[in-house]
Formats: sequence, C-alpha cells, structure tokens
Amino acid sequence: MPFHIVLVEPEIPANTGNIARTCAATGTHLHLVRPLGFDTDDRTLKRAGLDYWHSVHVEYHDSFDEVLSLYPQGRFFYASTRATKVYSQFDYKDGDFFVFGKETKGLPQSLIDANLETCIRMPMTDKVRSLNLSNSAAIIVYEALKQNHFPGLE
Amino acid sequence: MPFHIVLVEPEIPANTGNIARTCAATGTHLHLVRPLGFDTDDRTLKRAGLDYWHSVHVEYHDSFDEVLSLYPQGRFFYASTRATKVYSQFDYKDGDFFVFGKETKGLPQSLIDANLETCIRMPMTDKVRSLNLSNSAAIIVYEALKQNHFPGLE
Repeated sequence: MPFHIVLVEPEIPANTGNIARTCAATGTHLHLVRPLGFDTDDRTLKRAGLDYWHSVHVEYHDSFDEVLSLYPQGRFFYASTRATKVYSQFDYKDGDFFVFGKETKGLPQSLIDANLETCIRMPMTDKVRSLNLSNSAAIIVYEALKQNHFPGLE
Repeated sequence: MPFHIVLVEPEIPANTGNIARTCAATGTHLHLVRPLGFDTDDRTLKRAGLDYWHSVHVEYHDSFDEVLSLYPQGRFFYASTRATKVYSQFDYKDGDFFVFGKETKGLPQSLIDANLETCIRMPMTDKVRSLNLSNSAAIIVYEALKQNHFPGLE
C-alpha cells in the first residue's frame, strides 16, 4: 500500500509540481482537492514536476470530505503549524494519508479542531511562519518511509 | 553550534530561496558557493525566501575549497544520487555540513570520488532522476535535527 499526500486547495503550481516529483520518487499517491489555484496544464506546474508528472498516481476531488468517504479505512494526519504534536512522534504505516492546506492559510481551523490528536507540526524557530509546502511534504513523507525501511525504494 | 547547508553553484533562485526559508526556520547556516545562477537580489529568490532572508546567516564563498579551509574541523556530508550510503544511516551532530551540487548536474564527480564514505543519498524509485534540491535539503536537515532532538526549536 502506498502513502498518500492530500493537498487541499493548493495555490502555487511550483509547490504541487515539486510534490508530484516527490510522489513519483517514492510511489506516494497524490490527491488534489479543488479548487486549485492553477490550471493543471500550467507551465510552472509541469516544469516543477519536470517529466515526472505522468509517473504519479493523481486523484482529483471536489472536497476533502470526498477523500474521507473514498478511504474510510485510512489513517489521516493533518499538517499544521497550529498542531501540538511533532510529526516524528508517530509510527506511520503504509497507507497513511498526510493532509496539507493551502500555502497562505493552511488547513481550515475546523478540520484542525476536529482532529487534534492526529495534527502534526515541524519544530521551528519563531523566525518563520511555516516551511515551504513542498518541503513540509517531503520531510513528512521521508520520515514515514524511513520508519518503514523505504519500502520498494532503492 | 548550528548545522550548515552548502550549495555549490546553485542555479535556480526559487530553490535557494526555499532553502533560506528552511535555514531561517531551523537556525541552520547557509553557504553559497559562486558562481550562482542568479543575482542575489533576484525577485524570485526573495519571493521564495519571503521575508525570511534577513533572518538567515548567509556566507558567500568563491570556491568549495574556501569552505573547507574556513572550517577545518567540520564534518562534511555530500548529497548525491550517486552515493552508496543512505542519509539516515549516519548519526549527525550539531555543526555538521551538508553539501549539495547544482540542480542540473549535482556535485562534481571528483568531489564524490574523494569523499565516498560521507556521500549520502535518498532512497527513491527509478522514475525520477532526483528530488527537488530544496526538498532534499529539507529532508536531510530535519533528519539531522530530529536525531538531535530539535535543538533550540519549539
């Protein structure tokens, strides 16, 4: 079973492109929840994803609830600077979902409030508001992969 | 002591900007080895680094040898898809240096050959040539920080 990255209403095509590249590199499935802040044939998106876009399993969804209803057995982790738990304190398993909000605002507060026990954050200084979205996704997915001994990767 | 990221002749300003943001977020020092593929007041660089650029300790160098001569006590790790060791098999210590090559070509083969024991790679599928540069840097720095219990971070 693969890991899953869910981007809820991503705004910046280069970030989604870089995340698609990470997904291609790791066999992670990518879920894009509309509305997207760019067209999916956007030049910047393709460039950031390079020629890897076709290697990625991508699903498009009209709402985050749609993702939840399609994967009722899934374990969902929500990345947020407002989380109280650190990403590395969980034991991740193949099939887990990592959910990221839009670049400017993060995930809706209601989603955070309803899932406090599985909200995760990266420790950081008070100098920044957050990490770059694609960097956050890469850090979390590689932590999950590492815990699982990089399944299927060389 | 901080960790150090060394970018040898980086080409794409958005990557260096994102890495600067990660450095601001983590107290990591950033070393840029010339020639750079962009002007340091490049608009894309500043935008990717957002308003964090002034929070980063940045040093400019005319060659990688200059970095080595300035930090003779440093432990240097070289990120390369040609490395045989996986990044997570090392025990990192505050003060370690992580060296990354240019986006299109990576580090010079001579540097890899001369430092095989401390060259590190990220496991990945054969679908991609590499991860995005800023993602690679973020993954490695956060692995090093995690091993050290996120010193000074909250």
